[in-house]
Amino acid sequence: IQSKLPNVGITIFTEMSQLAAKENAVNLSQGFPDFPIDAKLTQFLEEGSAKGLNQYLPMPGYIGLREAILKKMYDSHKATYDIESEITVTAGATQAIFTAIATIVKPGDEVIIIEPAYDCYEPTIQLFGGVTKRLILHKPDYVINWEDFKNLISNKTKLIIFNNPGNPSTRILRESDIQELIKIVKDTDIFLLSDEVYENITFDNKEYLSFARYSELKERSFIVASFGKLLHITGWKLGYILAPKEMMSEYRKVHQYNVFCVNSPSQYAIAKYMDEVLDYHEIAKMYQAKRDYFRNALAGTDFKLLNCEATYFQAVDYSAVSELGDKDFCKHLTQVYKVAAIPFSAFYHNFMDEKVIRFCFAKKQETLDQAIENLVKLK
Amino acid sequence: IQSKLPNVGITIFTEMSQLAAKENAVNLSQGFPDFPIDAKLTQFLEEGSAKGLNQYLPMPGYIGLREAILKKMYDSHKATYDIESEITVTAGATQAIFTAIATIVKPGDEVIIIEPAYDCYEPTIQLFGGVTKRLILHKPDYVINWEDFKNLISNKTKLIIFNNPGNPSTRILRESDIQELIKIVKDTDIFLLSDEVYENITFDNKEYLSFARYSELKERSFIVASFGKLLHITGWKLGYILAPKEMMSEYRKVHQYNVFCVNSPSQYAIAKYMDEVLDYHEIAKMYQAKRDYFRNALAGTDFKLLNCEATYFQAVDYSAVSELGDKDFCKHLTQVYKVAAIPFSAFYHNFMDEKVIRFCFAKKQETLDQAIENLVKLK
Ligand SMILES: CSCCC(=O)C(=O)O
Ligand SMILES: CSCCC(=O)C(=O)O
Repeated sequence: IQSKLPNVGITIFTEMSQLAAKENAVNLSQGFPDFPIDAKLTQFLEEGSAKGLNQYLPMPGYIGLREAILKKMYDSHKATYDIESEITVTAGATQAIFTAIATIVKPGDEVIIIEPAYDCYEPTIQLFGGVTKRLILHKPDYVINWEDFKNLISNKTKLIIFNNPGNPSTRILRESDIQELIKIVKDTDIFLLSDEVYENITFDNKEYLSFARYSELKERSFIVASFGKLLHITGWKLGYILAPKEMMSEYRKVHQYNVFCVNSPSQYAIAKYMDEVLDYHEIAKMYQAKRDYFRNALAGTDFKLLNCEATYFQAVDYSAVSELGDKDFCKHLTQVYKVAAIPFSAFYHNFMDEKVIRFCFAKKQETLDQAIENLVKLK
Repeated sequence: IQSKLPNVGITIFTEMSQLAAKENAVNLSQGFPDFPIDAKLTQFLEEGSAKGLNQYLPMPGYIGLREAILKKMYDSHKATYDIESEITVTAGATQAIFTAIATIVKPGDEVIIIEPAYDCYEPTIQLFGGVTKRLILHKPDYVINWEDFKNLISNKTKLIIFNNPGNPSTRILRESDIQELIKIVKDTDIFLLSDEVYENITFDNKEYLSFARYSELKERSFIVASFGKLLHITGWKLGYILAPKEMMSEYRKVHQYNVFCVNSPSQYAIAKYMDEVLDYHEIAKMYQAKRDYFRNALAGTDFKLLNCEATYFQAVDYSAVSELGDKDFCKHLTQVYKVAAIPFSAFYHNFMDEKVIRFCFAKKQETLDQAIENLVKLK
């Protein structure tokens, strides 16, 4: 069998989680919470199934869930979308991103991504025959140089993918970034894909600027979000995508033959939870406390803590700690110090190694304490 | 925005279900059960979430579910697959089919499908640049002529898609069909995709021959199945795919960037249900009673009932009832007689119309009775 993705293996998240399990290490690699979810979510899941929501829901998603999402978009960003034609519930954010790329990218089209980049963008672009152009950002702050960015644009540029807030950089785009982007795309046919899965996990009251707030961006953007991140249910695999009508109509042509529709009882449960329980301001607070706890604990070590503006990841520069390459250092950490992490090189196409690794702090207190106890031995 | 699927609209299933709702008609169009599911499934769903299965499961699927599937494959077909490398749980059969086509088909590759064909194959082939070749089957029996089939094979043939039992034909492949197929593919590099979602809904004790039973087919086949059909939970959107290791390894490269993994509490619930409750022989019995009831009720009408060997669909030739084309007749039935159905022309690329439509009989008694009451007025 001829491979369509010859350079691809299993993802770094699968690899490190497997190694963590094998080594009986604290798993701060793959990003997922290990604390219990709100019991109300479980109750509503049961309720959805008991009420009979076990068959296909309409392809765009459960109407109650679409309503809850649009209310959230309005409350957070004063952004409006048409409930019939501009929103689709998806089998996770990854499926939304894959399908959006499938919808837009034809062989030879250029797609710009910003590295360090989440691992699913590039293979998907490749699968649809697109040519990936990359802006490479560097430690410690991963700031976009807009002159360099502009130089990547050509008349073949079809799509630009942003991840805002960024995983693993944790960087939030500033108003000045947004204005630069608007200048660049405003008179073009370029589409945008804004992966905003960490939109609700932002710290220090930094204002979070969704592309949905800017008409010049919104009109050409697929915006993707995740209930996994919002409600600590990464395994439910539910997310959504927003786009103007014409774009969404093309998206749905692909979506309906990829998954058709998505898990009914989960859609019911999330809708009810968003309606009746969720206070999404609490989420950032909860994670900020964990971030601060984790940072404080590592402050006395030789790990250099990079800024953490958002997401549930703490990046550290370990160059004062070890001579090893970042992937080898992650393996070493897992095997010897029993804490698993993700090397930043996994987020660069050429495995560029700046001796930075990423810990997930979306963990219960005991897990964090165990990891900290092991990590401070390194100092 | 330039469409990558210019010929595609919303699916016939969405269209007819919407019309049925608007017209307040009995919906026998889109295939899904309307009776309650076993309360144990709901209970196990709750239990999975309460036990903490709310985060990512391993990409290939929950280990307990993979075990249950492999046990079923062995009990039903004496077929063995490796649990680590030859099975992947999917977000429904559609996602498995889409991803398998994505894995195999490159621009210019020829893919053979057999019409009437389920609607998702062709647009997916098109999306990946494949060229669809079609064998056209006809009423009343939709039998494959293997000479005609052989003529479709060329040195560009990359993949052949079978739907066995067939939706909407309801036809089960015979041993003689299988032997013809083996002769055709055995010394080639052709891959097979066997969509077996109705494998457990077969009637009159006709033996069901999975491709998994024949080493000459199994070694080159993706086999796709659906828990939606097996357990009457079409809305849970869970299915699976089986393939030899090398094929599965390529499949997973795409799968992990399409959905990564699938709904955790549902996987737990289905695994436990298969282990502790499910008697899959009961499923066919239950549907056979519905089929017989529906057929008997229409026996006195001018509808000509085609054979129903499997699936939960009854095809009827209405040529003695109306002059209308099959899609117009379905609309007319929905609007005037308040029963929605699916026209067979929707399953042919050229909308070939042999005046055959399809009713879904996976319905509770009252629904069937209401539909029958309305339909007999046509005689
Ligand atoms: C789908 S596994 C990866 C989870 C994640 O978002 C991350 O670890 O960055
Ligand atoms: C995904 S909607 C179509 C359901 C179905 O299998 C059918 O009606 O044939």
